[in-house]
Amino acid sequence: MAIKELIPRSHWLTSLKVKTERTRVKVGPYEIGGNELVIMAGPCAVENREQILETAVEIAKYGGHILRGGAFKPRTSPYSFQGLGGEGLELLSLAKARTSMPVITEVIDTESIAKVAEVADILQVGARNMQNFPMLKKLGRIKKPILLKRGISARVEEWLLSAEYILSEGNSQVVLCERGIRTFETATRNTLDLSVVPLVKSMTHLPVIVDPSHGTGIRSIVGTMAKAAVVAGADGLLLEVHPCPEKAFSDGDQSMDISEFAKLMEDLERLVKFIDKSL
Amino acid sequence: MAIKELIPRSHWLTSLKVKTERTRVKVGPYEIGGNELVIMAGPCAVENREQILETAVEIAKYGGHILRGGAFKPRTSPYSFQGLGGEGLELLSLAKARTSMPVITEVIDTESIAKVAEVADILQVGARNMQNFPMLKKLGRIKKPILLKRGISARVEEWLLSAEYILSEGNSQVVLCERGIRTFETATRNTLDLSVVPLVKSMTHLPVIVDPSHGTGIRSIVGTMAKAAVVAGADGLLLEVHPCPEKAFSDGDQSMDISEFAKLMEDLERLVKFIDKSL
Amino acid sequence: MAIKELIPRSHWLTSLKVKTERTRVKVGPYEIGGNELVIMAGPCAVENREQILETAVEIAKYGGHILRGGAFKPRTSPYSFQGLGGEGLELLSLAKARTSMPVITEVIDTESIAKVAEVADILQVGARNMQNFPMLKKLGRIKKPILLKRGISARVEEWLLSAEYILSEGNSQVVLCERGIRTFETATRNTLDLSVVPLVKSMTHLPVIVDPSHGTGIRSIVGTMAKAAVVAGADGLLLEVHPCPEKAFSDGDQSMDISEFAKLMEDLERLVKFIDKSL
Amino acid sequence: MAIKELIPRSHWLTSLKVKTERTRVKVGPYEIGGNELVIMAGPCAVENREQILETAVEIAKYGGHILRGGAFKPRTSPYSFQGLGGEGLELLSLAKARTSMPVITEVIDTESIAKVAEVADILQVGARNMQNFPMLKKLGRIKKPILLKRGISARVEEWLLSAEYILSEGNSQVVLCERGIRTFETATRNTLDLSVVPLVKSMTHLPVIVDPSHGTGIRSIVGTMAKAAVVAGADGLLLEVHPCPEKAFSDGDQSMDISEFAKLMEDLERLVKFIDKSL
Repeated sequence: MAIKELIPRSHWLTSLKVKTERTRVKVGPYEIGGNELVIMAGPCAVENREQILETAVEIAKYGGHILRGGAFKPRTSPYSFQGLGGEGLELLSLAKARTSMPVITEVIDTESIAKVAEVADILQVGARNMQNFPMLKKLGRIKKPILLKRGISARVEEWLLSAEYILSEGNSQVVLCERGIRTFETATRNTLDLSVVPLVKSMTHLPVIVDPSHGTGIRSIVGTMAKAAVVAGADGLLLEVHPCPEKAFSDGDQSMDISEFAKLMEDLERLVKFIDKSL
Repeated sequence: MAIKELIPRSHWLTSLKVKTERTRVKVGPYEIGGNELVIMAGPCAVENREQILETAVEIAKYGGHILRGGAFKPRTSPYSFQGLGGEGLELLSLAKARTSMPVITEVIDTESIAKVAEVADILQVGARNMQNFPMLKKLGRIKKPILLKRGISARVEEWLLSAEYILSEGNSQVVLCERGIRTFETATRNTLDLSVVPLVKSMTHLPVIVDPSHGTGIRSIVGTMAKAAVVAGADGLLLEVHPCPEKAFSDGDQSMDISEFAKLMEDLERLVKFIDKSL
Repeated sequence: MAIKELIPRSHWLTSLKVKTERTRVKVGPYEIGGNELVIMAGPCAVENREQILETAVEIAKYGGHILRGGAFKPRTSPYSFQGLGGEGLELLSLAKARTSMPVITEVIDTESIAKVAEVADILQVGARNMQNFPMLKKLGRIKKPILLKRGISARVEEWLLSAEYILSEGNSQVVLCERGIRTFETATRNTLDLSVVPLVKSMTHLPVIVDPSHGTGIRSIVGTMAKAAVVAGADGLLLEVHPCPEKAFSDGDQSMDISEFAKLMEDLERLVKFIDKSL
Repeated sequence: MAIKELIPRSHWLTSLKVKTERTRVKVGPYEIGGNELVIMAGPCAVENREQILETAVEIAKYGGHILRGGAFKPRTSPYSFQGLGGEGLELLSLAKARTSMPVITEVIDTESIAKVAEVADILQVGARNMQNFPMLKKLGRIKKPILLKRGISARVEEWLLSAEYILSEGNSQVVLCERGIRTFETATRNTLDLSVVPLVKSMTHLPVIVDPSHGTGIRSIVGTMAKAAVVAGADGLLLEVHPCPEKAFSDGDQSMDISEFAKLMEDLERLVKFIDKSL
């Protein structure tokens, strides 16, 4: 009976002891994990042609690098908007053609990996799927970068082991994303745990980015926490931006509008100098 | 653009207001949610022929109703034992034939649902997959009972909405299972939340069972908490039992041995009279 | 420079290894930690003469042992009812004289210890004061029993060390009380952690009781959880009972009325036989 | 029977709606809550004459404003170092005379308030005492500034209400201090919740500072999180600095040494320009 032994942490493929050089994940013309702060922005969900095109154009205009937008939406209730599915992917394709921005979108099951990978330049694994091990294994066998969100109550070690599932299957293009954890606090949607940024970067060579939109759930503080995340050492940001947050199908409370996004980009441009990065 | 509105809680299919009669889920000759306390017991993982057959025979002997045993194991680390897979299912089949006990085993992805459903009399959705919505939807379209474990940090409302995913696709044979939540406490593996048993039963017509093995992670208190769960109103128990917990491939620290299981069954026989149930 | 070394857990005065015989705490004619299940019941706060006398008489009538009632109330808001203070103590005295029941009431600062100890047969340290070390030290120097509630986010080890503060000053008459911990769950006021009952009893010789009123915050499930607590091994219960919960100055949502209390006492009388205790 | 009604949040004395001008708390020649970033630094505990004098001189040299150092130490175990008490206060006095730095130190009970207030320019209420209401009330009647740490599992609303206890007694010189909350994460001592900084500042006129030492418990990331806190909007920092962290009587794992502190001050000098503050 062969039981694979638990490999000690210092031998994990994700460990900074195994690979001392920091991993840079290439997404289109950008590199996450290098000197550039990479900004991924867009609506929570692709809602229709006008919405995604308008948002994409504005994000590109103000210096965003990668367009985000959900086609398959994992929703707590079966009665909430579940995303446009295949149609959403087509609209993302269109936005990509229009703006030349690479695209990030979420994959929620193994069946649709191939379809999502046709459009996405980087595939997002949401917090709820951080321990969907069969899906992680399959994502370890494709040639596209993966963004792995931290589970809502995942300890650092579990998060790294989920990344290990992907690396151990052959795909080392993994970006970690902190997006808030669940605590007793009810004033915020989640508690954004920025301390994991320097902590995780002391343990692994993989890049780490931060999603202050889900991390706080409060539009008015997203910009501030985005800047704090950058100073904490984040290699990039994942931001929800919507042309009209009040009318968003989902996550309107935590979405910036275009002018808030433009203002943040301006602030970041000044801030990156402080941390020897570029934007 | 048609967006399905969020249906209010009082109209959910899981709501006791929509269906005032308690659901009884039939598994083999047993009914979960009726007057009988249903005991599901067995090893965390099917390890080999001898282990599963011996355990099954002993569990049947001491009055257990349903045999549990994992063939596909979701494990935090890719380097931990992942279960015997298809071979594990065959061994479960054998144990079932030998003892006439119905079988419960976990399903971890949509691809293997059909295969698992051939052997299992009730399919278990683990805590990590409580919000694996594509899988829940598919499980809503099969004709087998589903055991839905509460996610490690799931609020009651989210748990019920995950059940709603299954019911809204047509399968109303759902049993809820409390298995401990993640808190700051480190003395136990999880914090077993028995108060959800009466609470959830005041909200839904679905049966609720308790898993004190995962719920505590401490073998010496599993029996006591099993009894407390029954008094809290649980319709059944899910127990890890192993002929030799010290040598178990997984979860040995929280598995009862045969004599502990036998003692618990004896205690339960006396206790059920107190709550007007039978065993 | 003399620094007292941290004494290892096996040498703590609270440890079952240091004192293998279980401590019985005598309160009036009752012993907590022996074969008797001890019921402490009464209103959250002493509100007026009629309320406390009526409740006391009813509780005695249905078999309660010790009368609870707060004179000094620690309240989250400075604008909430803060208790009747000295007048509340006098009313408790009156109720005690009328019913011959011993009294438990809360002490919230070092200044009032002497005054509270004149009336109280056992002094309660609330969850918020579990780590009020100067107060614990002073309570360690009096000759009255102490009920030490677990802090809202206290780990088991911290709770035992707070008891150690009392024992190390010379007072070994300490009863521990689980009253729910703070988690992400919002459907209940707190998460009642019954698993600590058998766990803590395996670590310490001190008695452990449970407060299902604060532990759940939901009146309709208090009785059920009280019974589950008893089966989990609790040496007693602390219950909020109010003649008219709807009109209570505080904690009305979680207070039983007299008939609910009477019904619980009836159930407990049958249940204690199962666990070889008496009521 | 007069019961004071719960005053709605918009009428609390701490509310930004009641007082729209931001409170500036004067401590010696410094103002917390204005344009200056105020740095409080020093050892967890005053250990001896040499240690506190050396640390004070070095902190002053590198630009720290206020000297911190505990004389009365609330410790989880009664067997841990409890502080030098009165002798510690005298040593703080000496360090203050030597460096002209104002001093912050913790008060742990009502009896010692007067004694502590003789030496301290600002009195610290520790996390464990955030809901020690009798002490808060007394602190509301003195003429010294108060630093109120957030309890380890306090919700924002509870923290503000604890401040309200002080303000409602007449003392409006209150500084709030975020110091990490208790979550399931075990890789850090606490989870530093920086999102409360902008959130709380949108609710109250009181200044907010951050303690990244307790907030993380990990020396190597304290500096980074200190900078993130400043960008999140903190009005100041509370830092543990020890000339030889390896030999500290307490909290050595999270204390910076002098050179780390010097480096942080250098970084902050550049960073404050970004947020239009001075150092």
